[in-house]
Formats: sequence, C-alpha cells, structure tokens
Amino acid sequence: MPASYAYLGPEGTFTEVALRTLPEAATRELIPYVSVQSALDAVRAGEAEAAFVPIENSVEGGITTTLDELVAGEPLMIYREVLLSITFALLVRPGTKLADIKTVSAHPAAQPQVRNWLRANLPDALWESAASNADAARLVQEGRYDAAFAGEFAAARYGLEALETGIHDAENAQTRFVLVGRPARPAAPTGADKTSVVLWQRDDHPGALRDLLGEFASRGINLMLLQSRPTGAGIGNYCFCIDAEGHIADRRMAEALMGLRRICLQVRFLGSYPRADITPGEARRTLPGTSDEEFMAAADWVARCQDGRF
Amino acid sequence: MPASYAYLGPEGTFTEVALRTLPEAATRELIPYVSVQSALDAVRAGEAEAAFVPIENSVEGGITTTLDELVAGEPLMIYREVLLSITFALLVRPGTKLADIKTVSAHPAAQPQVRNWLRANLPDALWESAASNADAARLVQEGRYDAAFAGEFAAARYGLEALETGIHDAENAQTRFVLVGRPARPAAPTGADKTSVVLWQRDDHPGALRDLLGEFASRGINLMLLQSRPTGAGIGNYCFCIDAEGHIADRRMAEALMGLRRICLQVRFLGSYPRADITPGEARRTLPGTSDEEFMAAADWVARCQDGRF
Repeated sequence: MPASYAYLGPEGTFTEVALRTLPEAATRELIPYVSVQSALDAVRAGEAEAAFVPIENSVEGGITTTLDELVAGEPLMIYREVLLSITFALLVRPGTKLADIKTVSAHPAAQPQVRNWLRANLPDALWESAASNADAARLVQEGRYDAAFAGEFAAARYGLEALETGIHDAENAQTRFVLVGRPARPAAPTGADKTSVVLWQRDDHPGALRDLLGEFASRGINLMLLQSRPTGAGIGNYCFCIDAEGHIADRRMAEALMGLRRICLQVRFLGSYPRADITPGEARRTLPGTSDEEFMAAADWVARCQDGRF
Repeated sequence: MPASYAYLGPEGTFTEVALRTLPEAATRELIPYVSVQSALDAVRAGEAEAAFVPIENSVEGGITTTLDELVAGEPLMIYREVLLSITFALLVRPGTKLADIKTVSAHPAAQPQVRNWLRANLPDALWESAASNADAARLVQEGRYDAAFAGEFAAARYGLEALETGIHDAENAQTRFVLVGRPARPAAPTGADKTSVVLWQRDDHPGALRDLLGEFASRGINLMLLQSRPTGAGIGNYCFCIDAEGHIADRRMAEALMGLRRICLQVRFLGSYPRADITPGEARRTLPGTSDEEFMAAADWVARCQDGRF
C-alpha cells in the first residue's frame, strides 16, 4: 500500500495543520486534493493509504460533503480523529494598515466566524469569497485583495504579515477532522473511544427513531452526534449519522449494533477510534449493569439456565 | 401591519415561483431581499408582514442558514409551507448550440443536482458559481458566461432561451419553503398539519435524546424532520429542530409539548401549520388511544377518581 495520505488541500490550510498533529503523518507523503470527494476517491482507488478531511465544525455543524461521501459509495472507515481550535489571523502585505483595507477574502466557511470582528473593525470592507483561506492569502500576495482571513501559519508561505491574530466570533470554535481509510480491523480500544455508524430506518412510524436510539440508551451508551442526511428519495427521507461513546469491541456496543442490524433497513459501520477530546482517564464511567464483565456474566447465566444448571 | 411579504431574492428564482403559489401572495406586495437573514429581520423590524424562505431540500437536507435564524434571535413563527419540485433548464443566448458552451453558471446549491447531467453532456465546461440562479442568467445575458442553470421561467426575463429543460440528477428533487411571521395564534387545524419546535437538552446522558423523542412516540406522534444544529458552545453541543405530525390544538401534541417543556432546558415553538405534502383525507390515522376524545375521556376518568366517583 502506498505510504501516502491524501488531504483536503491546498497546502497551508487548517486541514494540513491538523493532519501534521498526527505522529503517523511524519512518515507519510502528504498529498493535497482539490475536494473532499477527490481525496476519498484516492483512497477508494488505492492511490492513497488514507485521506484526512474535516467532518464537524462547532459553528456550522456536520460537514455535509464529508458525511454524504461516507454514507454513500464504496465503504470507508474512520481510523482517527483530530480536534483543532480555529482562530483566524488578518493577513496583509507588509506595511498595510487597517485603514488601508477595502477588500477582505477567505473561504465562505470563515465568514460566520469573523462576522462580528469585521462589523466592529472593518465595517465598510467588501467581502470576496475564495476557494480556500490559503487561496485568499495568495490573492492578497498578488495584490488582488487587501487582506485575507487565514491561519497565522499561512503568513510566512505567502510573504504576508499578521495585522491581527486570534480572531474568532464564537468561543471554543473547533473543527473535527478524521483520517479515513479502507475497511480494516479497528485499532484496539483505548478506554476513550467513539463509534460511528449510519442508520437507515426500515419504515416510518411514530417512535421509529426513538426505538433506534433505544438500542444505545438501553445499554448505557451515550450519543455524541446525530446528524440527519437526505437519502435522495425526496423530502422527509433521511438516514442518520451517529457517533456513540465506546468501541465495537465493548460488549454493550457490539450488542447495540446487533440490535440495530436487526431492526434497521441498513446499518453502515464507519469505525471505532480513539476520542480526541478526552483521555481514557477522563472517560464517562460505565453505568451499572453495562460493563463487559456484567454482559459476560449475564450470558453465562442464561447459558446455565438453558442447560438446566441454574 | 404593512401588506407586504419579504422573500429571498432576487426576482426570477424558485423562491419567487413558490411564493406565488400561495393565494394570499396575490394581495401582497412581494419584496426581494438579498439574504434569508435580511428577509427575516424585515419581519422582526415590522417592515414586512411575513417572509418567505427555503428551509429544507431533498438533496442537501435542512437549510442551515434558515434553521439557525429561526433557532436564535427574536422568536418568529411558521404560518405556511410550500413544496416545489426543482428541475433546471439550461439557459443560453438565442442561437447558442451545446457545442459552443465553454462556461456554465448557477448558484452553488444547483451543482449537486446537475452534476451528472454536466458530466454526460458538457464534460469540459467550466463551472462558475453565481450569487443566485437568476444572477447566473443575467451574466449569460451580459455575455460573461455561455449558459446558466435556472428555472425555465427565468428565460423570458433575461432574453434567453432554454436549450434543455427538466434537468435534475435526483428524482423527486424538491425544496420546502416556509412563510414566517411574528408569533400569533396558529391557524385552526386542517386535519393534516405539522408542528415545528426547537429543543435544547437539559444535560447529556445515555438516553437523553431517546427520552425527548419518547414524549412524541408515547403519544403516537410521528416525526417528519430531526435536524441537529450546533448551539455554539463547542463540538458536540447541539439543539434539535423537529417537525412532528399534528397541530398544537391536538390534545396529544399539546401534552407532548408540555412534557418537553418540563424535561428540556428550553423549548421554542415555531408554529403549527397545514402540511403541503398531503391533504387532510390522506393523513395518517390516529393510533388507538391517542385521539382528542380518548385524551378527554382519560382526563375525565382521573378527575372522577380524584373525586372518589370511580
């Protein structure tokens, strides 16, 4: 398998910075792709070992391009996740002052995070959307726009300087990225893991979704994300992307997934992988009656009853 | 109150066509606004009686700009909904042939719906995003691009002709629009109604969301939409936009909303209004034990028990 990771390019964006926080990235060639779809297709075609793409944003929610790619097409699996705090720098050509700035540029996704700052500091600046924040920086370098919102790390690459740093409208603005590869045996549980699945309901009746969620709830499993995505079969037809606390190697998670497999039209397993937000020591305590030991003891007890040895 | 409706402009888009299907639109002045936010702000400021905006799309899912506007800020209420099937025409200057087309333009939201058609018919055409489909048509009229994807109705306005019509990648591609006004008494039930609410969980524990949905399920109420939206408090913090079958004047819905009000941190009522997808005769039959009569009979029985008259 080629020792390379595809990622959502271009170079010099938050995605590349997040990818470089993974130790395994140091030993791989990192190749930028123009879209989430092309990066994931590189994995499906065997051109890359894995792809690194954004999947959730604390301001905008689930990143639907990525979710839709994981929901459809040839199955892929999430190996790892990375959380990155997103704050912007205002990058300008050396010597530019705030009063000189008539036009600002960035990727459209940056706009909700810098809107208040713009209103307070550059109320008359004209917003011009760019294909990426790095591209906006390049256009500033070329003199097309006066300033770009981008990561501070992009300044050096484009010969710009940061007039202001730490710009973010929402406190705790974070983006979650995932490393996605072809289906394989998930890494062993760490004690603070997350399992991602996609569920398609068999039919639509009062309580249908409540019943699906009951498969997790009745086994003490907490949900971290529930994002509905259209199935393409018309208004009101949705599948559900779910992140749940725990690992498929946990008895309670395995049994919940078996339950879902029985009652759903379709279940797609997207992987079990270490959580980036907490360490194993900080993980939620298992609810009474839902530990591996209790599941095994209960199975033993039923087997003994079935044997007449109770 | 001014007899005008604000809508997401410009003129000549699917939003205007959908709005004109409402009988009450004929007696109002219809005023285009540049964004969903500005249209809704016109209502909040008392400049318009109501605003008409897209809220859900069968290809892209919930329209997050609109949902986020209804979730936050001064409360608004949904009065009506409209469903519109979306198919595109390829608009060109008169005389242009398919082989002449080097550049195509439309709003970015049109792209997923015409992608397959483009690949099959114009694989080498360059895509240029426009602020709206109507704007793309205007840019074709001005000679800046060769072709625009827009509603066929936009051809006449911009002196263009439709080289092809009925373009849509997904069958049943529909967009749902809503007419939003200031809080008022909801219109009386029609027998085929929908209720929209936003729910904020009080805390996060295994089964928390299942318990919220149980308030609907245990009263035989079917859900039509569940869309999570970030609260802004960081990754994993979501509120839930829910559409449920029925009207707040139905006993089962009123009781479900009371239950949610008790167990949620916050509930925002977004309105009860007639469904656009079915007529009252096609509505789902009420499940046994969940009709208004049964709710009233049960309340009477408990009251008699409390009085010692059982």
